[in-house]
Amino acid sequence: MNLKITLSCLVLGVLMLSCKQSNTEKTVDPLPTFNKAKSKSEIIAFVSSVTDPSNPNFVEPKDRIVCFDNDGTLWAEQPLPSQIFFVFDKVKELAKTNPKYTTESPYKEVLANDIEGILKVDKAKTIAIIGEVDSLYHTDYDSTVNSWLKSAKHPILKRTYDKTVYQPMMELLDYLRENEFSIYIVSGGGTNFMRAWQPELYNIDKNYIVGSTFKTEAVHQEDSIAVLPTSEFDFYDDHMGKVISIQKEIGKKPIMVVGNSDGDLEMMEYSDTDNPHPTLMVYVLHSDGEREFLYSEKTPMGRLEKGWEVAQRKGWTIIDMKKDWKEVFVE
Amino acid sequence: MNLKITLSCLVLGVLMLSCKQSNTEKTVDPLPTFNKAKSKSEIIAFVSSVTDPSNPNFVEPKDRIVCFDNDGTLWAEQPLPSQIFFVFDKVKELAKTNPKYTTESPYKEVLANDIEGILKVDKAKTIAIIGEVDSLYHTDYDSTVNSWLKSAKHPILKRTYDKTVYQPMMELLDYLRENEFSIYIVSGGGTNFMRAWQPELYNIDKNYIVGSTFKTEAVHQEDSIAVLPTSEFDFYDDHMGKVISIQKEIGKKPIMVVGNSDGDLEMMEYSDTDNPHPTLMVYVLHSDGEREFLYSEKTPMGRLEKGWEVAQRKGWTIIDMKKDWKEVFVE
Repeated sequence: MNLKITLSCLVLGVLMLSCKQSNTEKTVDPLPTFNKAKSKSEIIAFVSSVTDPSNPNFVEPKDRIVCFDNDGTLWAEQPLPSQIFFVFDKVKELAKTNPKYTTESPYKEVLANDIEGILKVDKAKTIAIIGEVDSLYHTDYDSTVNSWLKSAKHPILKRTYDKTVYQPMMELLDYLRENEFSIYIVSGGGTNFMRAWQPELYNIDKNYIVGSTFKTEAVHQEDSIAVLPTSEFDFYDDHMGKVISIQKEIGKKPIMVVGNSDGDLEMMEYSDTDNPHPTLMVYVLHSDGEREFLYSEKTPMGRLEKGWEVAQRKGWTIIDMKKDWKEVFVE
Repeated sequence: MNLKITLSCLVLGVLMLSCKQSNTEKTVDPLPTFNKAKSKSEIIAFVSSVTDPSNPNFVEPKDRIVCFDNDGTLWAEQPLPSQIFFVFDKVKELAKTNPKYTTESPYKEVLANDIEGILKVDKAKTIAIIGEVDSLYHTDYDSTVNSWLKSAKHPILKRTYDKTVYQPMMELLDYLRENEFSIYIVSGGGTNFMRAWQPELYNIDKNYIVGSTFKTEAVHQEDSIAVLPTSEFDFYDDHMGKVISIQKEIGKKPIMVVGNSDGDLEMMEYSDTDNPHPTLMVYVLHSDGEREFLYSEKTPMGRLEKGWEVAQRKGWTIIDMKKDWKEVFVE
């Protein structure tokens, strides 16, 4: 077989294969757990247009930046963000050997599961517990978080925390990844906490995870250098904080932002205006009190009030959990 | 032609093509402007081993993180980093219309090109000029920087600043990119300044550029949100600062670090130890007083003293500019 024949066969083979592939593509639903809903068609229309080189809305892969909020957007966040339950469980563990945790506030409120009592304690003191737990479990932090996530059960949903992730959103991540989006997490949650488990559960790598931070110290240890967490709070990645951290750590405006609360509004307003590219802003609406949680305008965690008004006015995409999702959680 | 024959042809064609390709690969030199030197063979051996799935040193693409210093590593930095010359030129421009710049320190020293005088002024005041220029030229910052870079001439090298980039290092960036490394810049230079021109000159995108920063303010402006620079210094990305920012913004240890001064030593020590992957640490040695600059142990800018001692002891790779490079600058 000479080269000419081989090449002809090759071209023909590739053509036949790509024909077959594009036929298959048409029949594969990229978001199978979404019902046939407005949100689904708006998302698919946007992704199709920015990835089609012949479309005037085409965006180069390097500029296909999407930012996702985490708590309440990719997994459940009621009655409190899951990181808080992780910290509480660790305080209970520490109390077994150290009396400080049984007598002092806000630790004793944590031990009594007294959430109202905790909220009455000085906020800085409460937040400092998160940094304290990060420090105390520093050496083996990632595996500590992961084994907790896979064994502890959510108090209301009665499933392990790794199963409180939303199945339709995992499909959305896959769909965007296949379409060469760079997917960033921009969340009020702790960066260290999220980096421990999101690479495995979301297939998002540590360098794409941006969150709230405690100050760190870099110190020489023998022949090496270690970065140690402290319990001094550094940066709260919510509201305007999300805008600041997108500018600082990403340096480009995302073309797509997905969130669920007023805390995500500023990064949406920032990304949706003065953007050289077409944009899609998406809010997840917690409308499903049976399968998940029904939020009201008074929900303290993840409230969507001002954001809802702006979304309506600007015609942003709304994923209505109750109407738009066949299933809520991963199996 | 039935499917079976097509597929056989396809497989055969692909095999022949990949044979041909691997033959071609062997003859292409990935670093043509490097002489046949120890540094070149160490770099190629490292990259070959971490990209070969059958090699025990294989590293998954997602973990192929490399961090480059910028000034003195990818482009010239003597007698002062080029960003300083940019700022000085802008002060001279501002002085044409605003008398403040002709009478007050350290502006008047800048106008007189009195570098020794500038160094005598309070350091914080001098650094604040950088933030001031960032703010004043904010609206059109990227294009202001780029047109300066392509028109102003370096006082000693007598070439425009975009031509003070090192040709062999551009080949190294390309080589690593082709081998699926994620290339980060981790530099003491200003983040905004570097993000203005490195996407074009280095083919490195804004979200991979980490540097020193001034505090920013995010404010509502009509229907949008703008992030405005201030002249309040925030973070100096040098020495331990580089370790802190790698942990914060990348979250994983690089497997390869390339620098040229003691300011890069800490990120090398951090990356070279307790790393789950094989590592390569590389220092660029400024040994060429004819074509570039001959640094001594007393060079204030980019001094390599402690780092040299550690590099010798640990057997790190040294790129000797005079011996190892056929050409220094891009054409």
